[in-house]
Amino acid sequence: MKAHYVRPLDLRHGRVDLNHGAGGRAMAQLIDELFARAFANDWLAQGNDGAVLPAPAAGERLVLATDAHVVSPLFFPGGDIGSLAMHGTVNDVAVMGARPLYLTASFILEEGFPLADLARIVQSMAAASRSAGVPVVTGDTKVVEQGKGDGVFISTTGLGALPAGRELGGALARPGDAVLVSGSMGEHGMAILAQRESLSFESAIVSDSAALHGLVDALLAAVPAVHVLRDPTRGGLATTLNEIARQSGVGMQLDEAAIPVHPQVAAACELLGLDPFYLANEGKLVVVCAADAADAALAALRTHPLGSDAARIGTVTADPQYFVQARTAFGGQRMLDWLSGEPLPRIC
Amino acid sequence: MKAHYVRPLDLRHGRVDLNHGAGGRAMAQLIDELFARAFANDWLAQGNDGAVLPAPAAGERLVLATDAHVVSPLFFPGGDIGSLAMHGTVNDVAVMGARPLYLTASFILEEGFPLADLARIVQSMAAASRSAGVPVVTGDTKVVEQGKGDGVFISTTGLGALPAGRELGGALARPGDAVLVSGSMGEHGMAILAQRESLSFESAIVSDSAALHGLVDALLAAVPAVHVLRDPTRGGLATTLNEIARQSGVGMQLDEAAIPVHPQVAAACELLGLDPFYLANEGKLVVVCAADAADAALAALRTHPLGSDAARIGTVTADPQYFVQARTAFGGQRMLDWLSGEPLPRIC
Repeated sequence: MKAHYVRPLDLRHGRVDLNHGAGGRAMAQLIDELFARAFANDWLAQGNDGAVLPAPAAGERLVLATDAHVVSPLFFPGGDIGSLAMHGTVNDVAVMGARPLYLTASFILEEGFPLADLARIVQSMAAASRSAGVPVVTGDTKVVEQGKGDGVFISTTGLGALPAGRELGGALARPGDAVLVSGSMGEHGMAILAQRESLSFESAIVSDSAALHGLVDALLAAVPAVHVLRDPTRGGLATTLNEIARQSGVGMQLDEAAIPVHPQVAAACELLGLDPFYLANEGKLVVVCAADAADAALAALRTHPLGSDAARIGTVTADPQYFVQARTAFGGQRMLDWLSGEPLPRIC
Repeated sequence: MKAHYVRPLDLRHGRVDLNHGAGGRAMAQLIDELFARAFANDWLAQGNDGAVLPAPAAGERLVLATDAHVVSPLFFPGGDIGSLAMHGTVNDVAVMGARPLYLTASFILEEGFPLADLARIVQSMAAASRSAGVPVVTGDTKVVEQGKGDGVFISTTGLGALPAGRELGGALARPGDAVLVSGSMGEHGMAILAQRESLSFESAIVSDSAALHGLVDALLAAVPAVHVLRDPTRGGLATTLNEIARQSGVGMQLDEAAIPVHPQVAAACELLGLDPFYLANEGKLVVVCAADAADAALAALRTHPLGSDAARIGTVTADPQYFVQARTAFGGQRMLDWLSGEPLPRIC
């Protein structure tokens, strides 16, 4: 049964007000005329406090992953908080080796935020959802007073199905394993920083934000026995490798010259005194697999448009101190420690 | 493998800083020393980007529900944002008729927020999780700059298992059905308002925040064919009944004198010019069932401590305008429309 509202929502000049989160008719209208229309699917149309979903196939386990998204600015070259919230959580499910099935979304809106911007974000998120084939099946909307939020925050949770027998995890790297990346490092982080600092380059640096489950499928079809998959987001490649090293109780020896970095990102890093290996990625994989499977993994990654610049960047070592080190272009060694010092907040 | 930090987290005098959300060592320490310790379970200990969970039993479907929690103040009589975030989402899963299995939690923290307060919230949430028997299996933490948030926001997503053949939903109310509530209306909303406005009463009005899955179990064991279950949160009883009326294409006729309201809540409403039927509840059920099952349903609710004040409050009617009406104590009729006018923001 559809409700009738006196006037349609003014998506051109209207603004978010406290009524949009208060549970009454204004909230119902925002949900009907914006969210439900953009994300249209049968589960959302159930209109209950939760979505009823079919069970996974026999033998499959479930994977749950969640992320809060607070990126600032909300719009950036290559995406916005809506597409990022979709991709970020689809990727967290995909790197567990699972097939992403459904997403939930909860929005925290700031009073006064333009409905036109909200509509742009929701439509971008809906487009990313359709393109990934992962529907947003239930959601929630809250509104906080002006000055108590920052436009829009979006938390997404993903549910996926993990095939029987598939075991991936950060604790499964073994000395001798090969370390691969699916492409160049640092584009998302630098796109956000450049936008935030109003830096202009000859051509804009574009976020790599993308849904990675297709790339993961291509990889695991070729090399089912991948040991670790991760998407190197906050803290970048260096921090992600340190997490894996700590979880697995191993070290890593990288070859810095082998790690792909877009020349514009390298130049911007030089200018800003930043290290691209600490910048966030939102559409890249780190892969750890047995050394004898590395060539097949690399070939599989390169067959997919999102993996065309895939590279083998190093080796897992036996190291009781779990150090991640890189041979520099000049033949020296440098430590890639965890991210520390100046934080780069609100990158995702 | 455990990491070693130079100094333990200062949970007494420390404050949230941007490093706690930046993905590096400070974030890892916050997760290790606060979140992982409080929520300790095997799934969280997997330490990956998502949690791997067993599939539900054969024949069961899945239920997903999500909520953003932005309640202000963060601490109130009867709970805090931590226990509320747990109960709110467990209840959204339970009112679908499903057994709540797992929760995810994403935190948006404001720079400068005292770690002692955060620890209190996380420990309260963990206690609510243990008491409900629903573990927090994966999570995320982000930090926003001072003045861009409001202490703590928590989004939770619940996954539940729905037994074969069970069908509950807002669209299933039929003319002639009985309408029941599990207890008195408006305590949560009034507890928050009283705290916010520094109202003092002879004794504090305490939020009814509670996990309802045990009460739902008791009810459905006695009356498997319940048509609709809802927890009347934002917008209160009146708004929830209007939602059901709209979804089912029916009206409702209530008996105002039959709707339980705690005398202190009634007095405070009188004082503030508020209607208790529009105040949020966080530990109450609305039940719609066949009229001939109403006595059994009421008896089942009353056997449970959370349902001791359960009451039959009205009847579903055939009404092409979907009106929710109440006979007043003076014999008149009044319309209970959707919540409109002054919003009561950030009640949950």
